Amino acid sequence: MSRSINLAVIPGDGIGQEVVAQGLKVLNAVLPEDVKLETKEYDLGARRWHRTGETLPDAELEALKQHDAILLGAIGDPSVPSGVLERGLLLKLRFAFDHFVNLRPSKLFPNTATPLAGRPEIDFVVVREGTEGPYTGNGGSLRTGTPAEVATEVSVNTAYGVERVVRDAFARAQARPRKKLTLVHKNNVLVFAGHLWKNTFDKVAAEYPDVATDYLHVDAATIFFVTQPERFDVIVTDNLFGDIITDLAAAVTGGIGLAASGNVNPTGEFPSMFEPVHGSAPDIAGQGKADPTATILSVALLLRHLGYEAEAARIEEAVSADLAERDGTARSTDAVGDALAGRVAG
Amino acid sequence: MSRSINLAVIPGDGIGQEVVAQGLKVLNAVLPEDVKLETKEYDLGARRWHRTGETLPDAELEALKQHDAILLGAIGDPSVPSGVLERGLLLKLRFAFDHFVNLRPSKLFPNTATPLAGRPEIDFVVVREGTEGPYTGNGGSLRTGTPAEVATEVSVNTAYGVERVVRDAFARAQARPRKKLTLVHKNNVLVFAGHLWKNTFDKVAAEYPDVATDYLHVDAATIFFVTQPERFDVIVTDNLFGDIITDLAAAVTGGIGLAASGNVNPTGEFPSMFEPVHGSAPDIAGQGKADPTATILSVALLLRHLGYEAEAARIEEAVSADLAERDGTARSTDAVGDALAGRVAG
Ligand SMILES: CC(C)[C@H](C(=O)O)[C@@H](O)C(=O)O
Ligand SMILES: CC(C)[C@H](C(=O)O)[C@@H](O)C(=O)O
Repeated sequence: MSRSINLAVIPGDGIGQEVVAQGLKVLNAVLPEDVKLETKEYDLGARRWHRTGETLPDAELEALKQHDAILLGAIGDPSVPSGVLERGLLLKLRFAFDHFVNLRPSKLFPNTATPLAGRPEIDFVVVREGTEGPYTGNGGSLRTGTPAEVATEVSVNTAYGVERVVRDAFARAQARPRKKLTLVHKNNVLVFAGHLWKNTFDKVAAEYPDVATDYLHVDAATIFFVTQPERFDVIVTDNLFGDIITDLAAAVTGGIGLAASGNVNPTGEFPSMFEPVHGSAPDIAGQGKADPTATILSVALLLRHLGYEAEAARIEEAVSADLAERDGTARSTDAVGDALAGRVAG
Repeated sequence: MSRSINLAVIPGDGIGQEVVAQGLKVLNAVLPEDVKLETKEYDLGARRWHRTGETLPDAELEALKQHDAILLGAIGDPSVPSGVLERGLLLKLRFAFDHFVNLRPSKLFPNTATPLAGRPEIDFVVVREGTEGPYTGNGGSLRTGTPAEVATEVSVNTAYGVERVVRDAFARAQARPRKKLTLVHKNNVLVFAGHLWKNTFDKVAAEYPDVATDYLHVDAATIFFVTQPERFDVIVTDNLFGDIITDLAAAVTGGIGLAASGNVNPTGEFPSMFEPVHGSAPDIAGQGKADPTATILSVALLLRHLGYEAEAARIEEAVSADLAERDGTARSTDAVGDALAGRVAG
């Protein structure tokens, strides 16, 4: 294992700046002395776009490639037309760096505010496909702005793309105690993509006889997220369904303030990127109110990805212990970062 | 108003048969003596398909057109390949009869088992587009079954189709006390369809200055369904997003056993079709266990659509009163139907 980490940091917009600062604080605190951490900040997001009109110039994309991993805060601002930064920056990174495993764990920590009565046990991970589906930007519009407009969106699914993410999900399920994998799709309506997903899933399942499998339509899956979330262990699903159900998953666990994610390129060909699931929350930006926990948990995913399993686990245990002792008083962004940095420090 | 109802009945598969019988029981009980009810049953669904290979023959489609409305139970059985009955029968009816308003109210009745802590007030209606989006069957697959397979699904959206459903939703919002309409889409990623929806929404909004408007990405909307469902009044959304969020809406209110829906053709050119949101539930079919309430509430929507407002309201009040007095003992399908028929009977 390399004892140095060359990290790219994209704080981005809104609360992104604030939460990333706390993520780095905890990262510094948890790393053993002999690990050399180098960070380089990239100024990308709404400010950059307003200043230069650029979202992600080629030179920066090249530079980002040289890092071991990327930590991202949040992208998006109401002053920028919807889609510009999402497609020109965030999704461009996910596609350019072939982040085909979008990893989103959901765990109900002690003492957190789930809206579900009865506090079920929740501990599952969604493996969301990250490079295909309705996210490819395929589609267009004809006679735009007229009463005769037609607008299309094309979901593109390939055996290559589906199989690699399904394999990753089976391997993850096999490594967990419950060894259960659920495919979520809508193959009774989206029959072409649905059959490709289901056939691939069934084919790979034959190689993992010890993994229990299940299939749910996405609409039915949302029901179980609120009535029976404990039934899930690992879920594999397409890019758009994954987007929707992971926000729901965050909501039924501790809320979007705790939801971490990794945009993973498992082959190591490109750097993987770790980010909280939440957005830039411009309404509370700059007030020191944002909860940095999701970013700090994303740092744990980052460390695990780079082989620092013990350090990743230390962060997760710190979060768990910290939440268990919370007394309900609101804490500043900084205070949460300090508390967690204190807990993980050797 | 015509004082006769010529109703087509498609019981369909699984529990469809049982719940439709109760729906008809309550319909008979609630109608004034001078209203002549004629019903004709159509044998469509899994059994028919196994027997003849047919899903919806042209002759039957023509015959169905002659009715004032259609009451449908549920379609689908594990013995039929996924998609065959959904696309060949249910969606074929929605498309052939131009059911562009798929109406799905969600209301938290007294004494019902919401999984949400704190029992928020829930009373909203989703206006789901019913004839476009990813449901058109556009798409295909290339090199099917090989490692080089590509499968696509095309979401088709037209100004014509979007504007008519958005107008319907604004009119509905204006007629409700809170007068609030939320557009749910994903216009930061699905930019072509998203911009058509958003621009149309903003254009029509100008004609309804007394309706408060809001926009949410579909992922964010799922969060609010569990953390703050009381924020919603009327929601308008595309066919697939509507499918997903209405199952979630059912789950956070009284469960899928209470969720009613109408596939409405507001122009009256074709008969509208009313059905519970739930499926055919083959696991409990034939056991007299299914809750017929969703079908009975769908009958209320049917009556309202045909102009029998007082009768529709009587059914809804009966359901509310019945639930309020429930003591938790399980009741048979038949017993629920009897209880509600008793309550609505003049
Ligand atoms: C901001 C947006 C493009 C993004 C997505 O849709 O993937 C976000 O919702 C997420 O889940 O990371
Ligand atoms: C059965 C299926 C085709 C249908 C849909 O996707 O519309 C169902 O889920 C619904 O919501 O009515």
